Amino acid sequence: MNKISTEETVTLKQSLTQCAHKLEETLNTLLASGNRPEERLIDAMRYGVLGGGKRLRGYMVMESAKICGVRNIEQALRVASSVEMLHAYSLIHDDLPAMDNDDLRRGQPSTHKKFDEATAILAGDALQTMAFQILAEEETHPSAAVRVELVKMLALASGAHGMVGGQMIDMLGEGKNLSLPDIKNLHSLKTGKLIRFATEAGAILGETNKDIRGRFVAYGRDIGMAFQIADDILDTTASEEELGKTAGKDAHARKSTFVSLLGIEGAKQEAQRLAAEAAKHVSAFGEQARFLVDLTHFVVERRN
Amino acid sequence: MNKISTEETVTLKQSLTQCAHKLEETLNTLLASGNRPEERLIDAMRYGVLGGGKRLRGYMVMESAKICGVRNIEQALRVASSVEMLHAYSLIHDDLPAMDNDDLRRGQPSTHKKFDEATAILAGDALQTMAFQILAEEETHPSAAVRVELVKMLALASGAHGMVGGQMIDMLGEGKNLSLPDIKNLHSLKTGKLIRFATEAGAILGETNKDIRGRFVAYGRDIGMAFQIADDILDTTASEEELGKTAGKDAHARKSTFVSLLGIEGAKQEAQRLAAEAAKHVSAFGEQARFLVDLTHFVVERRN
Repeated sequence: MNKISTEETVTLKQSLTQCAHKLEETLNTLLASGNRPEERLIDAMRYGVLGGGKRLRGYMVMESAKICGVRNIEQALRVASSVEMLHAYSLIHDDLPAMDNDDLRRGQPSTHKKFDEATAILAGDALQTMAFQILAEEETHPSAAVRVELVKMLALASGAHGMVGGQMIDMLGEGKNLSLPDIKNLHSLKTGKLIRFATEAGAILGETNKDIRGRFVAYGRDIGMAFQIADDILDTTASEEELGKTAGKDAHARKSTFVSLLGIEGAKQEAQRLAAEAAKHVSAFGEQARFLVDLTHFVVERRN
Repeated sequence: MNKISTEETVTLKQSLTQCAHKLEETLNTLLASGNRPEERLIDAMRYGVLGGGKRLRGYMVMESAKICGVRNIEQALRVASSVEMLHAYSLIHDDLPAMDNDDLRRGQPSTHKKFDEATAILAGDALQTMAFQILAEEETHPSAAVRVELVKMLALASGAHGMVGGQMIDMLGEGKNLSLPDIKNLHSLKTGKLIRFATEAGAILGETNKDIRGRFVAYGRDIGMAFQIADDILDTTASEEELGKTAGKDAHARKSTFVSLLGIEGAKQEAQRLAAEAAKHVSAFGEQARFLVDLTHFVVERRN
């Protein structure tokens, strides 16, 4: 894989940062504080979803929407916020003592440490609900058909045969030797399907034809797997300080990973192969897809 | 309030039982078992949502849909199943050690006792997702506008300013003296909004005018509150065997309830007043609404 120039990297990073700011603003508005008795719940939801993160999934929504001709940035920001809320809910529940039992998230106390377990469970529950609510509301798109398609695809990506199903398989795999196809299936569900939804969502919002939508699905599938392999590599090579969360968790939980199966060099090669595949799927969009192409390099070269 | 005749009671009960059977069948089909690696998750979802319960919410969907001219019973059963899944998810999470810590549900081990905490958290999460998925799918109604309206209303009923918000307020209220308006607000969120959605859903599915939809909303609001007051009474007067769950929980958790504020007799009167109000809202539908009227008596006279 060719090393991208420093200038390009800066530009992608600027674009990512700019997008993250806009998303924080949108999330902040959607999750308005008030004086209702359930305020503690809103506080915990805000804590879980605001204040950091690279917002890669939200960025994918915004970039794919732009390429697919979505002019109304508010609509794209709502869909991106919905994906970020869904992702945040999964992290809040994942960190719970009964699950991964992780006290740290992005270098801060995880939601159940900052609040308490019950509040964290409810905050995750309500963030999931809100992700669907936002997609269903008229402000997201004038066409009910577009909105309900977004709802359906997010549900399929995140439910029992998507993200949550993947989390279950991940838990059941602790201490077991999984094969490479098993690991690929696990991660295509656990992290892959939501990333695929993020890139597909732009095409749904832009009401593109099937062919174009298929390219974004394929891009999401390949960059999602590359992202996960890079995650496995980081878990063994990066420090807790770099990660902002507990390092070496996979080995500790005796999980089969891409690294345990392919070795670090083999895993790196596979990540780079998939990143290159992902880039190919959007190459037909030319200059418009520059950031999505840059992103394929970014996900495999990041340090956190 | 007039005591309803034994014959009428039997007929409502037969209708309820028949509906519960149909709903179990539909839920069983929607939650098909298979041989996927995430099977343990599906098993836990099935355990949480199948096997019992009065299916009052599902019944309300079916009856309101019938009155609103919905001919396609499969569509109504899908919406009813969605409501039952949403309700089941809330019970699974409610029973968790960090929440109500209840080992029993309908006389059986609660989901986290039968499986484990992590599986119960994930099963609840996936049941919520599936409730939205089912509403969004084309099989529920040919009109995308109807489907997306159902999604939006279910989200509003069950999220941070609905059911989950109510659970948060309920938890925060433990050990505190709440006023009657506080208690009413709590329960209109915690149990009321989902019951209101169940009765409104039939009108949405039947694409009725605003006036008719408003009557079902009002019916749901009043029967929901009557139901909750009856629940508070049962918690102090019924045995664990009758309830199939832990009795006396409210007093144990030092919660303010309708009984602690109004006394048993006062609470009974308020429940009957609200049941009569609920019946009035659907009286214009005549014989068609007979079961919904009978149901207003049933919810305040039930023993579990």
